[in-house]
Amino acid sequence: MPKIKEECGVFGIYGSKNPRIAQTVYFGLFSLQHRGQESCGIAVNNDGVFKSYKDLGLVNDVFTPNVIEKLGEGNIAVGHVRYGTTGGNERSNAQPIVVNHIKGSMALAHNGNITNSYELRSQFEAKGSIFQTTSDTEVISYAIIEERLNSDTIEEAVCKAMNKIKGAYSMIIMSPQKLIAARDKNGFRPLCYGKTSKGEYIIASESCALDSVGAEFIRDIEKGEILVFGKEGIKSIKEHCNKGKQTSCVFEYVYFARPDSIIEGKNVHEARIKAGEILAKEHPVKADVVVGVPDSGLDAALGYSKASKIPYGIGFIKNKYIGRTFIYPEVKSRMDKVKIKLNPIANVVRGKRVILIDDSIVRGTTSERIVKLLRDAGATEVHMRVSAPPFINPCYYGTDIDSKENLIACKYTIDEIAKKIGADSLGYLSLEGVKKIGYVDEKSGFCTACFDGIYPTEIPTKTDKNRFERKINHIDEEK
Amino acid sequence: MPKIKEECGVFGIYGSKNPRIAQTVYFGLFSLQHRGQESCGIAVNNDGVFKSYKDLGLVNDVFTPNVIEKLGEGNIAVGHVRYGTTGGNERSNAQPIVVNHIKGSMALAHNGNITNSYELRSQFEAKGSIFQTTSDTEVISYAIIEERLNSDTIEEAVCKAMNKIKGAYSMIIMSPQKLIAARDKNGFRPLCYGKTSKGEYIIASESCALDSVGAEFIRDIEKGEILVFGKEGIKSIKEHCNKGKQTSCVFEYVYFARPDSIIEGKNVHEARIKAGEILAKEHPVKADVVVGVPDSGLDAALGYSKASKIPYGIGFIKNKYIGRTFIYPEVKSRMDKVKIKLNPIANVVRGKRVILIDDSIVRGTTSERIVKLLRDAGATEVHMRVSAPPFINPCYYGTDIDSKENLIACKYTIDEIAKKIGADSLGYLSLEGVKKIGYVDEKSGFCTACFDGIYPTEIPTKTDKNRFERKINHIDEEK
Amino acid sequence: MPKIKEECGVFGIYGSKNPRIAQTVYFGLFSLQHRGQESCGIAVNNDGVFKSYKDLGLVNDVFTPNVIEKLGEGNIAVGHVRYGTTGGNERSNAQPIVVNHIKGSMALAHNGNITNSYELRSQFEAKGSIFQTTSDTEVISYAIIEERLNSDTIEEAVCKAMNKIKGAYSMIIMSPQKLIAARDKNGFRPLCYGKTSKGEYIIASESCALDSVGAEFIRDIEKGEILVFGKEGIKSIKEHCNKGKQTSCVFEYVYFARPDSIIEGKNVHEARIKAGEILAKEHPVKADVVVGVPDSGLDAALGYSKASKIPYGIGFIKNKYIGRTFIYPEVKSRMDKVKIKLNPIANVVRGKRVILIDDSIVRGTTSERIVKLLRDAGATEVHMRVSAPPFINPCYYGTDIDSKENLIACKYTIDEIAKKIGADSLGYLSLEGVKKIGYVDEKSGFCTACFDGIYPTEIPTKTDKNRFERKINHIDEEK
Amino acid sequence: MPKIKEECGVFGIYGSKNPRIAQTVYFGLFSLQHRGQESCGIAVNNDGVFKSYKDLGLVNDVFTPNVIEKLGEGNIAVGHVRYGTTGGNERSNAQPIVVNHIKGSMALAHNGNITNSYELRSQFEAKGSIFQTTSDTEVISYAIIEERLNSDTIEEAVCKAMNKIKGAYSMIIMSPQKLIAARDKNGFRPLCYGKTSKGEYIIASESCALDSVGAEFIRDIEKGEILVFGKEGIKSIKEHCNKGKQTSCVFEYVYFARPDSIIEGKNVHEARIKAGEILAKEHPVKADVVVGVPDSGLDAALGYSKASKIPYGIGFIKNKYIGRTFIYPEVKSRMDKVKIKLNPIANVVRGKRVILIDDSIVRGTTSERIVKLLRDAGATEVHMRVSAPPFINPCYYGTDIDSKENLIACKYTIDEIAKKIGADSLGYLSLEGVKKIGYVDEKSGFCTACFDGIYPTEIPTKTDKNRFERKINHIDEEK
Repeated sequence: MPKIKEECGVFGIYGSKNPRIAQTVYFGLFSLQHRGQESCGIAVNNDGVFKSYKDLGLVNDVFTPNVIEKLGEGNIAVGHVRYGTTGGNERSNAQPIVVNHIKGSMALAHNGNITNSYELRSQFEAKGSIFQTTSDTEVISYAIIEERLNSDTIEEAVCKAMNKIKGAYSMIIMSPQKLIAARDKNGFRPLCYGKTSKGEYIIASESCALDSVGAEFIRDIEKGEILVFGKEGIKSIKEHCNKGKQTSCVFEYVYFARPDSIIEGKNVHEARIKAGEILAKEHPVKADVVVGVPDSGLDAALGYSKASKIPYGIGFIKNKYIGRTFIYPEVKSRMDKVKIKLNPIANVVRGKRVILIDDSIVRGTTSERIVKLLRDAGATEVHMRVSAPPFINPCYYGTDIDSKENLIACKYTIDEIAKKIGADSLGYLSLEGVKKIGYVDEKSGFCTACFDGIYPTEIPTKTDKNRFERKINHIDEEK
Repeated sequence: MPKIKEECGVFGIYGSKNPRIAQTVYFGLFSLQHRGQESCGIAVNNDGVFKSYKDLGLVNDVFTPNVIEKLGEGNIAVGHVRYGTTGGNERSNAQPIVVNHIKGSMALAHNGNITNSYELRSQFEAKGSIFQTTSDTEVISYAIIEERLNSDTIEEAVCKAMNKIKGAYSMIIMSPQKLIAARDKNGFRPLCYGKTSKGEYIIASESCALDSVGAEFIRDIEKGEILVFGKEGIKSIKEHCNKGKQTSCVFEYVYFARPDSIIEGKNVHEARIKAGEILAKEHPVKADVVVGVPDSGLDAALGYSKASKIPYGIGFIKNKYIGRTFIYPEVKSRMDKVKIKLNPIANVVRGKRVILIDDSIVRGTTSERIVKLLRDAGATEVHMRVSAPPFINPCYYGTDIDSKENLIACKYTIDEIAKKIGADSLGYLSLEGVKKIGYVDEKSGFCTACFDGIYPTEIPTKTDKNRFERKINHIDEEK
Repeated sequence: MPKIKEECGVFGIYGSKNPRIAQTVYFGLFSLQHRGQESCGIAVNNDGVFKSYKDLGLVNDVFTPNVIEKLGEGNIAVGHVRYGTTGGNERSNAQPIVVNHIKGSMALAHNGNITNSYELRSQFEAKGSIFQTTSDTEVISYAIIEERLNSDTIEEAVCKAMNKIKGAYSMIIMSPQKLIAARDKNGFRPLCYGKTSKGEYIIASESCALDSVGAEFIRDIEKGEILVFGKEGIKSIKEHCNKGKQTSCVFEYVYFARPDSIIEGKNVHEARIKAGEILAKEHPVKADVVVGVPDSGLDAALGYSKASKIPYGIGFIKNKYIGRTFIYPEVKSRMDKVKIKLNPIANVVRGKRVILIDDSIVRGTTSERIVKLLRDAGATEVHMRVSAPPFINPCYYGTDIDSKENLIACKYTIDEIAKKIGADSLGYLSLEGVKKIGYVDEKSGFCTACFDGIYPTEIPTKTDKNRFERKINHIDEEK
Repeated sequence: MPKIKEECGVFGIYGSKNPRIAQTVYFGLFSLQHRGQESCGIAVNNDGVFKSYKDLGLVNDVFTPNVIEKLGEGNIAVGHVRYGTTGGNERSNAQPIVVNHIKGSMALAHNGNITNSYELRSQFEAKGSIFQTTSDTEVISYAIIEERLNSDTIEEAVCKAMNKIKGAYSMIIMSPQKLIAARDKNGFRPLCYGKTSKGEYIIASESCALDSVGAEFIRDIEKGEILVFGKEGIKSIKEHCNKGKQTSCVFEYVYFARPDSIIEGKNVHEARIKAGEILAKEHPVKADVVVGVPDSGLDAALGYSKASKIPYGIGFIKNKYIGRTFIYPEVKSRMDKVKIKLNPIANVVRGKRVILIDDSIVRGTTSERIVKLLRDAGATEVHMRVSAPPFINPCYYGTDIDSKENLIACKYTIDEIAKKIGADSLGYLSLEGVKKIGYVDEKSGFCTACFDGIYPTEIPTKTDKNRFERKINHIDEEK
């Protein structure tokens, strides 16, 4: 089931000495796991001494009690879950990156994608710098540390570095004494902060991570803002703020974020319900039941049902023990892997006209199988509705969309797609519709480049993307 | 979150030589994983030579490609997933049990609980028999093999043994040449069979396992029936049939089975929707939204909403990466483990009167926390509704209900429970109501002993239950 | 490097309550690891409650601190290391076997091989008994438990069972209150006991295990003796003693036992030195240096040097980090696996006439490579001397000698073998010579069947050996 | 048993395309495992694309077939085994270090210790460089890459960098097209090269690694030499040669190297035999048997025996299955961990005057226990002889000698030490003696700083050593 890959999640904590500070980060990362399942890491700061651990794998597998124990006490910590968009799937690319420099140590956790990392890296290399990973996070580190030499404070260095790094970044920086949140001037990726009842400050990619550690949401980090937590309290640096229109990634609402998160003042679940409602209005059809593809289509299905007055049904059971299943090639032809993960409840769809809701169609193969499952279970008609427009353009801001050759919407008309996946009809949410779903006010605009090709920033040339990978390739053992 | 423990799932296949027969069993067990997560096993029969593998852990963890490979080819195979109700949580108690006897080998996979296993075991021990596990499955094996000496066929031995073994059992027996399904005369636990397009016969605890391997459901095994798959085709032995009223476990509908399964002709999802509908009629209340506790309360919540016309809402996000989380004792007081697994969507419940649906209240502590989560998220009223009656009696048929001291319903009145969990009101489905939910016809009665104490068979005295454990204790390393 | 496979080691302790009794067994097994590297197990007895753990692997890998912890306290315990001679290499065949019977529990650890296990097993099966392993240890268990029904004590049952079980067995039996050592009337396999300064009694296959736990050697268990450790002290039952000539396995001295062990009053290292001395007299040759193949040929080489006055040299370095190395098939042709494990010290052999000592030649391929290594390193002549006669007959007493087709000595004359392995000359210790090496007095005779085909007991017919394996086959995952 | 820690081993191969090139490196590292057991790594170069894998653990555990497979084909590769002397025991400090720079990739494997790494690192940091490890290997990388900017070739950059890096280094550098060996001008650590019959060039720390992969030894890399393997053949750069006296580490002969290796033209085994011979002359004593402590004292014991005409005996059996044993603290007092690993053969020493040979006494506790083992086994006298002088000074060239507070020779006279360890007499090899053992000619001098405090180079101030560790601390999970 090829899907759009999610990207990364970041989490930071600034408080008083806590012998189990990594445990809090662990819980935070755990609630951000949906943003990245390839690798994860935590760095703990104990009076300027940094201990870190990172590895490939899920939070629960990597952070055993033994590891949490060893990370020891500290008052500041930062964590990361990763799905790599730049840099291969390797242990060495796991974050936070922890570096040592003339003024001490720095840990950096980053969500996004730097559009000029190739240029920056080349510049640093020309000065004799060496790179040990293929990730743009290492490039950002260099950019900051270079400025650190001539800056009084780490935040000053971050502020200067932000003049150079372009693209999408929501990042958390830990210095010996401070925790810093920084967000690019477009605000592509979400970043918010809150406070626990014990007085600890929490920075996280999504508000659901604040909830999970019992922190109260305070507000989103502003686009371009640098927020510094230190001994003197909180300081906001707004030098890069209001330098352009906010262009948050609309896919966060449509696809990435957890439904219980609130981004830019808008609850994700509600946004998806609303997408379903708009979809119902844009693409109505007579039917008996509305079912969502679990879990991505459930919210929109509820919205569609609400707006259309067609009953909502639970059409599929998803096997919740699904992990890394393997299947022998020769068995593949006989066994339907989709069916093992997703089984229709025949009683819900038998003899009925079904509206099937999902949030996207990538290659079309999964949709085709799901439509077939419904028909085999007795559905008389299957009308597919998608709660986002077809995405047909590459993303340079931290989302890993499949290549054009694989994207069904790049190759076929909507009618052709409907036919290919075996649906009686097919409707996508319009671009106009998608703009409404997360709407709060005029300021909170969206990046919709993947739908319409209008990029809010300069974009890199295609050839750059995997340049670093070509040169250096670590491998990691699959476990 | 103490819950009623599920029990076991069995799966068998009879077909032609297949070099990857274990792969099919693997997929079948995978879809039965909800019935037991402690241990699993597969035995493959290759022309009378049995190979087996079993271990503690989930299907996906135990059955690596390497293990599947080694189990090799065969034409008959049997598998098991286990949560132990008798016998400790040990590797040695994993099933299927494979024994060697005068007439060859036999593998046995069993779901249920033998009520006279203590007596039978004592009788065998008095003859010099030795036992290497503490499970009643070994006792059943002895009962069958003892009869095998004086029987022409394995099925004849099974039939005679069924005169001796009492209680609940749905089991699959593999002999050198046959695959046999047998179900106790009360039909406590489900068992059904079907056929793949390739002509393989599949026996499974639930029809969802047939679906997962592409087999078409044929019918349930009848209560008391012995169904034999062999070279001469299928043979049904009905000597033990119709020796009493069917008393299927009602908890299969309420709690254990997967919603997409069909048991005794009734779809589980529909039964739960119906439970919600009846619950709405029995315990109506004015409210703004109906939310279910994921995943156990979702179906009934949909039914309640349907019958009450109060809108259905998705009230919680369940972290799907939850596995074996650990938490340091000193952190426990500050961190809410329930909250890490379950986060309310505040926008759905804020300022609203909420009806909260779950399928049971065991100790009350989890319900208390969930009610509190809703209130903290802004719910103005929380009315809890439970889609089953309070269970207050021990089960001797394969369900592991907590001891009376822990069951909140054994200690408090409904009003007291409501107060304890912090709900504005509380309503349980009535016993009359529960009897209707899986209703098909007069023949398909239920065992409701856990609710009303009316046991359909003789029950063992309390002291027997853990007798074997006291004497012999294997340990298993936690991984 | 195919070698004669070693067999099993047993270890038992009887003392007062000890919260870490498994730790002592762990150390004992650790020093017996050379007797079996396939699987190991420990059973601990805490007031009649048995806890056990066994698995495939080395003692150090299986018995992690966590497992030792869980085995808990006790005053009696028994352990086993295994290389299986009957029964496949499977987890289910690991020992000690722990069984439950009418009078409680029994754990059994066994070294040897029962020659009539097929007949006994068939008899038990004919009575309805079931077998869950393919090892003869389960057969012994049945034999004892059957007698237990009509015996006042466990030792009485053991004594009666010994009338039925034939062949080689040195075993330790743990009952709820006693620890029992029993040895067959021929005394094939070693078994001794001692006492720690804390007053604990230790039973072990070899005296080196007594040393490792700080116990003082008391004496060997006599052939046919049953030695009982219980609340009333030590009791020796000699009913089966002196029923025949002692025929200890000569391979224990030549091959199996650790050099620091004392068996039947004779130190193994001294026996091997003596073998070398006799060998020097039987097969003298002019040479410059005597080198042994590590580690098996070192002692005899020292003896040869001593008797011949030819200097002893350290001719090879054995890589001590060797474990389970793998090698790609296509690499095999180029890489010499022997060379990776064993590298000659060229300076020791260059330009010299070398006498090369080993304890056996099995298939000849390893010897061929070692001779070649010496020549490549510059040896001008290589004279191979073997500190035991050629073995050409199967062993039915617990040693796994390769099949006749593979044994080079079964197919070729000594001159032919010399030519095949590339040696300038070859000499084996004579049968007369071998009888002298462990010689203590007239009573302590040897079984030399593998050399001369004179079996001290009835032997089973060839077809029996793997009968059980054919019927039942567990598999175990390689880790 | 605290011992002097060994340091590192390096291995490189330059040949034609080989789909299993990592397998060859694996075998090479395997034979160098004695030089470092903490971590290991391999980097493979496939037409300029580098793949690498490194982790904590032994070669056999880290380089599973799966990992070897993934490293894929290549024509150049470099490997490393590590015991860290600078930089903590961490995964991030494992080598080879692989870096990316303006001219491509570079992999670096290093054995030794840079004495001015603190200064160099500070200089780089002052230019904005970031460091991700605490090892001096990263500092060397920077030194080379900085020069690479203004050099035509990598070897030119290496040559220039060697003007800056001071101390001990034998290193292998892999560039996109070349393999380079470089050795410091003092020649502290060994490094040699050879050629396989297939024409591949092999560079290795010790000649035993050449043997293990079937390569013929050609010669040692000269002190100060840079040897380049590339498309144009082999090129030697001798700019740094003959800039001072050779001061090879004498401990390589005494302690570190494998006996079958030849270093600077001298076989290690022979050197140790000779040390024993000299020791016999320097410290003669009347005795009945000479025994060595396995494995470190065996060679010298043979030499002592030879020179003194006192018979050589095998006094101890070392348990070869020893790995990471654990022992409960409360058991420690009762159990003798030394005894578990080392058991005396009583028959060899009983009633005898024993000369006990070892290569060093560090804290004295192990020697004390071994002397006691001999006495308990019946030795009437125990005369300890040590085949090296007492080391009393820290090493700055890659050997991890315990701190002065722990070194028994820093605190007591020889007579006091003899008394402390319970020996009847004690003799150390003299400094004059040690200089003779590896003697080849006038050019091949030794560093004997650990014995006499005469350091051949400037040494860093004490405070520097762990500076980096203080700032940055990765942790690694123990497995």
